[in-house]
Amino acid sequence: MKKPPNILLTNDDGIEAPGLKALTKAMESVGNLTVVAPAVERSAVGHAITLSDPLRVAEYRVNGRVPGFSVNGTPADCVKIAVWALLKNRPDLVVSGINLGSNTGINTIYSGTVSAATEGAILGIPSFAVSLATYENPDFEAAADFSVHLSRLLLKNRMPEGVYLNVNVPNAPMDAIRGIAVTRQGLSVFKERFHKRSDPRGRTYYWLSGQKVNVPTDPDVDEGAVNRGYISVTPVHYDLTRYDFLDTLKNWSLDR
Amino acid sequence: MKKPPNILLTNDDGIEAPGLKALTKAMESVGNLTVVAPAVERSAVGHAITLSDPLRVAEYRVNGRVPGFSVNGTPADCVKIAVWALLKNRPDLVVSGINLGSNTGINTIYSGTVSAATEGAILGIPSFAVSLATYENPDFEAAADFSVHLSRLLLKNRMPEGVYLNVNVPNAPMDAIRGIAVTRQGLSVFKERFHKRSDPRGRTYYWLSGQKVNVPTDPDVDEGAVNRGYISVTPVHYDLTRYDFLDTLKNWSLDR
Repeated sequence: MKKPPNILLTNDDGIEAPGLKALTKAMESVGNLTVVAPAVERSAVGHAITLSDPLRVAEYRVNGRVPGFSVNGTPADCVKIAVWALLKNRPDLVVSGINLGSNTGINTIYSGTVSAATEGAILGIPSFAVSLATYENPDFEAAADFSVHLSRLLLKNRMPEGVYLNVNVPNAPMDAIRGIAVTRQGLSVFKERFHKRSDPRGRTYYWLSGQKVNVPTDPDVDEGAVNRGYISVTPVHYDLTRYDFLDTLKNWSLDR
Repeated sequence: MKKPPNILLTNDDGIEAPGLKALTKAMESVGNLTVVAPAVERSAVGHAITLSDPLRVAEYRVNGRVPGFSVNGTPADCVKIAVWALLKNRPDLVVSGINLGSNTGINTIYSGTVSAATEGAILGIPSFAVSLATYENPDFEAAADFSVHLSRLLLKNRMPEGVYLNVNVPNAPMDAIRGIAVTRQGLSVFKERFHKRSDPRGRTYYWLSGQKVNVPTDPDVDEGAVNRGYISVTPVHYDLTRYDFLDTLKNWSLDR
């Protein structure tokens, strides 16, 4: 009999988040789970790592049963400390989620959920992030179910080095999901607003709010696919080089 | 006579950092400067944005002369609030740096310095990040001088949409710099170590330290170029899609 795979689960909504509980419950059928997740919510921390403060770790049981650790760090910290210090065996798979709120388009680069999968990929481990496109009344079933299916595929099929997957799921019951779309990252931008306020002592402060403009409707783009009711799967990597501009740039007079 | 360009300067070492002062001093010859930078050091914040706390802004003069604002946020916050709330005129250029410590290889994705340039590019503004490859005894002259030259080029030449530049400079006097290398991002990884300690109450905590392994020596790669004494210029973008894997992924049985 083949040994069951070792799977590391994490997220950025914190170890007590309902999305992580739902993911953990579903993934128990796939392998030996360990959960290493932030002690508290860490949304929009981007790909931060904690260098100037020590990391504290506490044991934790997810759903009262699955072994885990809470860490006073970011999702990227969690994956690093799990692999290098906490886990007995190197994980065969890293899954980050289920995040409350989609991580599509340029949100991908701000996302703590995605950064945990990035960290897994940097460590050479098959990894994906999974997010649910809602902040209210989440229905995690379709996302949890697809995570199980995708995990089995990733334990069987190899991805190229440095590639990982960013999955976004519509907030809909399973039978309302229209299918799976392999997509590219959307590039539509935010129109931001800063709300200027005064505190009781008369000092100015600002709140950020913003909304995306020109959101793509193309089902080949992550945001378009999710809005049309498809589960979006985007292959991403952490090589930011814009290769097609290298030659042009070499012809600028950089050397004067 | 042509109007001088409006230039936004920022960093992640904080508004009082010597690298920002050196950059500001040199860039006064290029255009009208405004500095909007974090109030305190924000290293390794990655592409974080502040959503759950209000941003506070204080007026500040860099080098006692150049107008600016300190912000209790990240470098990405600084660029956002500068463009959407603080500046009278949209900047023609965003320059982030001069960072103490290189931002090459996979450090690029953790870098607050780079994230400010990313934010500039997202906003459609020509942008670059500039870092000095040392933590000690910095000599900012070559980095400041090249920033002036590159700024003039970027105000004249157009880059493709979404592209920005990540510049890394060896810590050497000008006449010891061997030239300019257009490079790709290195992909060598860290071997991390977590140092386990106990606090006076017997609770465990960890410190992260790590070092890169298999650092490339190829002068076409950012780290290799800097180590050989070249200023490295890497064109980067914020589209993480791994395009060459899209078709293969479509042939996986994602739909079962």
